[in-house]
Amino acid sequence: MGKQRHVHALEGKQRHVASPPAELVSRAREGQPLAVARLISLVEDASPALREVAAALAPYTGGAHVLGLTGPPGVGKSTLTSALITAFRARGKRIGVLAVDPSSPFSGGALLGDRIRMHDHTTDPEVFIRSMATRGHLGGLAWATPQALRVLDAAGCDVILIETVGVGQSEVDIVSLADTTLVLLAPGMGDGIQAAKAGILEVADIFVVNKSDHDGADRTVHDLSHMISLGRREITGPNWRPPIIRTTATTGSGLDDLMTALDTHHTWLVSHGELQTRRTHRAAAEIEAIALDTLRTRLRHLHGAEALDTLAKQVAAGELDPYAAAEAWIASL
Amino acid sequence: MGKQRHVHALEGKQRHVASPPAELVSRAREGQPLAVARLISLVEDASPALREVAAALAPYTGGAHVLGLTGPPGVGKSTLTSALITAFRARGKRIGVLAVDPSSPFSGGALLGDRIRMHDHTTDPEVFIRSMATRGHLGGLAWATPQALRVLDAAGCDVILIETVGVGQSEVDIVSLADTTLVLLAPGMGDGIQAAKAGILEVADIFVVNKSDHDGADRTVHDLSHMISLGRREITGPNWRPPIIRTTATTGSGLDDLMTALDTHHTWLVSHGELQTRRTHRAAAEIEAIALDTLRTRLRHLHGAEALDTLAKQVAAGELDPYAAAEAWIASL
Repeated sequence: MGKQRHVHALEGKQRHVASPPAELVSRAREGQPLAVARLISLVEDASPALREVAAALAPYTGGAHVLGLTGPPGVGKSTLTSALITAFRARGKRIGVLAVDPSSPFSGGALLGDRIRMHDHTTDPEVFIRSMATRGHLGGLAWATPQALRVLDAAGCDVILIETVGVGQSEVDIVSLADTTLVLLAPGMGDGIQAAKAGILEVADIFVVNKSDHDGADRTVHDLSHMISLGRREITGPNWRPPIIRTTATTGSGLDDLMTALDTHHTWLVSHGELQTRRTHRAAAEIEAIALDTLRTRLRHLHGAEALDTLAKQVAAGELDPYAAAEAWIASL
Repeated sequence: MGKQRHVHALEGKQRHVASPPAELVSRAREGQPLAVARLISLVEDASPALREVAAALAPYTGGAHVLGLTGPPGVGKSTLTSALITAFRARGKRIGVLAVDPSSPFSGGALLGDRIRMHDHTTDPEVFIRSMATRGHLGGLAWATPQALRVLDAAGCDVILIETVGVGQSEVDIVSLADTTLVLLAPGMGDGIQAAKAGILEVADIFVVNKSDHDGADRTVHDLSHMISLGRREITGPNWRPPIIRTTATTGSGLDDLMTALDTHHTWLVSHGELQTRRTHRAAAEIEAIALDTLRTRLRHLHGAEALDTLAKQVAAGELDPYAAAEAWIASL
């Protein structure tokens, strides 16, 4: 693997040899899991072959219905993801899952247990599951997730599910990649107000109240209805009021209702031109993120880390304000 | 107020008239709350006077000990903040609080109740409390919070406490502004693993287990100790092992221990050169964020929104990959 990566690195720089990224994409389109995994690794690691990979993927993208699934810890996101995989597989769909984890090396080991529920599907050749973690790089996920999405899309997935613990702005950014965003809540997980704090309510196209057999489910549904009726809905377009679906993911109860809601939302997206709007919006955000990352790299190369460090020391000492320092830093671009 | 802002806007452009930002800074340094509030508003709203404000503040910054306080919803962050204010006031310190809320307009109203616990201090002229919200601007907080911090610092606060619900990357970024970061947990708030998911454990300089009179406090302390002994500590420097302090913020129990831990950490920061290192790091991040924001603005002005929209449509249609689009977008910089 190390050697193969090295070869790719050379190719990324030389740009004129036979194109393993194109070969990998072709094998991924045949559904070969190793090719899919390899491509995701290439985009995650910001391999020098990244641009070639991106170019090879582009013509095959746009076919997948992208679902975002988020909610506070403990509401049953992994279990619902597993239930959704089962439901889509019953329809004969190829499905990709990006389990995005905003945690860090410190806690990395502890999280594997969480993924056990998805193990039922790991031997199914039509199911691709990939866990992604920030690995301590700030903004790393926001940057790598859309590229991993493109890999799964080009690999012929009909449905791609991005699952993340939905409690911060980065997670909101990630789920906002989706065509359809599901926000998962559960009874007694702190009241609706605590969920609202996380800023995830207004990104929901569909609310799912999971563990609906637990006490307090009626109350949670009631509180949500109330908040929806009060709230402004600036993100979701006109004529869509997010439904509230009750599920018990462990038994599969409510899954039919949820699948119907997903179909209805997809139809709405297409018929209102919203699908195109959202995807253009997603692409614009992606272009801007890549452009700014390119500029950041260019700045660092132009000036070296010392220049920034010198300016930072002056700012820390109160000799310079950060705006003047930023101007000085970008002056030679 | 509207007229005053207009005058500032003119000054920001002309740069040669008498300087209300400097006057405001001078009044803020005398401890006038209205001047402090006005300056924070100027930086929050990205007023055209922002650069002037930043320049006027710079010489007076660097004096405050900056504390970050974060933790999952419901652990008692506001109550502990209030208890810390009381403890620092007993030492005669001037204290600033930035209560950072990563929530959105949708939920804005619901959050005020949370701040009621701090109302005890709102009439104390040596306590400045400011709530900050994203108002739907992605990345808005990461950008405005350091500037608000500078205002409170220049206003002569001995201690500045940044409090945020700590559950996502943006919140980690915000608390990483601090010299000393407190991570607050409580018994039975989901086990330690759930807290670890949020990626906040490794930023802790001090752990606080609040509600230590509740069942399960021993267990939470034990789990934390175990995780600390297992975990890599890449962020905190050498020779510092984060202590675990038990508190009951509602009664003030454990506050003395916490104050001692804060003093000990501050001494460690100074004696190991870590204070300087952290502040230089903070300043570098701030400079880079401002530089990239400037470049983003410049790109948008150079090309107009249409250029990005056109590229985004091509990417969404699979005609172009996002890297090629980003190259095209920044080509004329």
